Amino acid sequence: MHESAIQDLYHEDYSHCYGCGRNNPHGLQLKSYWEGEECICRHTPKSHYTGGVPGFLYGGMVASLIDCHGAATAAAAKARESGEAVGRFVTASLTVDFAKPTPLGVELEIRGKVSEIKGRKVTVALSLFAGTTLCATGRVLMIQLLPQAQQEKPTA
Amino acid sequence: MHESAIQDLYHEDYSHCYGCGRNNPHGLQLKSYWEGEECICRHTPKSHYTGGVPGFLYGGMVASLIDCHGAATAAAAKARESGEAVGRFVTASLTVDFAKPTPLGVELEIRGKVSEIKGRKVTVALSLFAGTTLCATGRVLMIQLLPQAQQEKPTA
Repeated sequence: MHESAIQDLYHEDYSHCYGCGRNNPHGLQLKSYWEGEECICRHTPKSHYTGGVPGFLYGGMVASLIDCHGAATAAAAKARESGEAVGRFVTASLTVDFAKPTPLGVELEIRGKVSEIKGRKVTVALSLFAGTTLCATGRVLMIQLLPQAQQEKPTA
Repeated sequence: MHESAIQDLYHEDYSHCYGCGRNNPHGLQLKSYWEGEECICRHTPKSHYTGGVPGFLYGGMVASLIDCHGAATAAAAKARESGEAVGRFVTASLTVDFAKPTPLGVELEIRGKVSEIKGRKVTVALSLFAGTTLCATGRVLMIQLLPQAQQEKPTA
C-alpha cells in the first residue's frame, strides 16, 4: 500500500539524523508516509525515554517527533507541489504545546498538515496522538536546503 | 564553588527523565546550576546525536536541552522566590528558534533567565551557545506540579 518513506528518499549525505536518518544505527529511524491530505508517522518510543514520572514520554522526545516528522512533511509537500525530487529541509522554528502527558508503551501517531508553502519555506501544523487522545500540538517552519548544498557538504 | 545541581534536588519520584533525571541510567543526566542572575547548564552531546549532516546536533536534542534546562530554571527561580524546597515543573509550551547549526564535539552552554513568575506558572527565556556562537534561542512556559502530586504518582 505505502510508497517509500519520505526519509528513505533523502539524499545520502543528509540521512544521519538521530531522529529520522536511515544511516544512523543508534537513532530512532522515524518513517513518515503521505496519506490523503496528511503526512503520518507512527512510532512507539522505548521505555527509557521516560519523562520525570515513569510511564510517560519526556518532553524532548515529543519535540523530536514533531520536529523530524515536520521536516518530512515539508519535504514531501514541496516535492508534490514542484514535481521535483524530495529535498532536505532544516528547522528554522519549532513550537510545541503539551496538552496531556504522552503515555509510553503505546504506538504514537504524529499527523502533519501543510499550512503554507512559500518558495523554500514550508510551515507545517502537527498533532501527536496516543490512540484517540491528543497529547501535543506543534508548528514548525522549515527551510529547504539549496540544491547545491545537497551535493556538497556545507562548511558551516 | 557550586551548590547542588537543581535536578539533584528534585523529588525522588520525579527524577527519571531521559534528559535530566539522576535516576535514568540511559539518559543525559543534565545538570543545571544557578550563577548570578542566570541558570546555566553545560553539556557535550555524544556524536550519535547528529542531525541530518554529520558534525551537527539534531534539532530534537537542541529542543531537549532547552526544555529540561528550562524546567530546572523555573524550579530554581520559584524556590528562590518562595523560600520553599525545589518543586517539579512540567512543560506547557516550548518554542525554539534555530539561529545557526549547533556543532557536535564541543561543550554547549545553555543559559536560562526567568521572564515571569505568576503563581505556579514560570516563563523562561533560554539561549544555547557553542563557544561564543549563539546557535538557538528558546522560550518555555513551565507549570509547577501541585505539592500533593509530588507525594503521590499521578494517575494521568
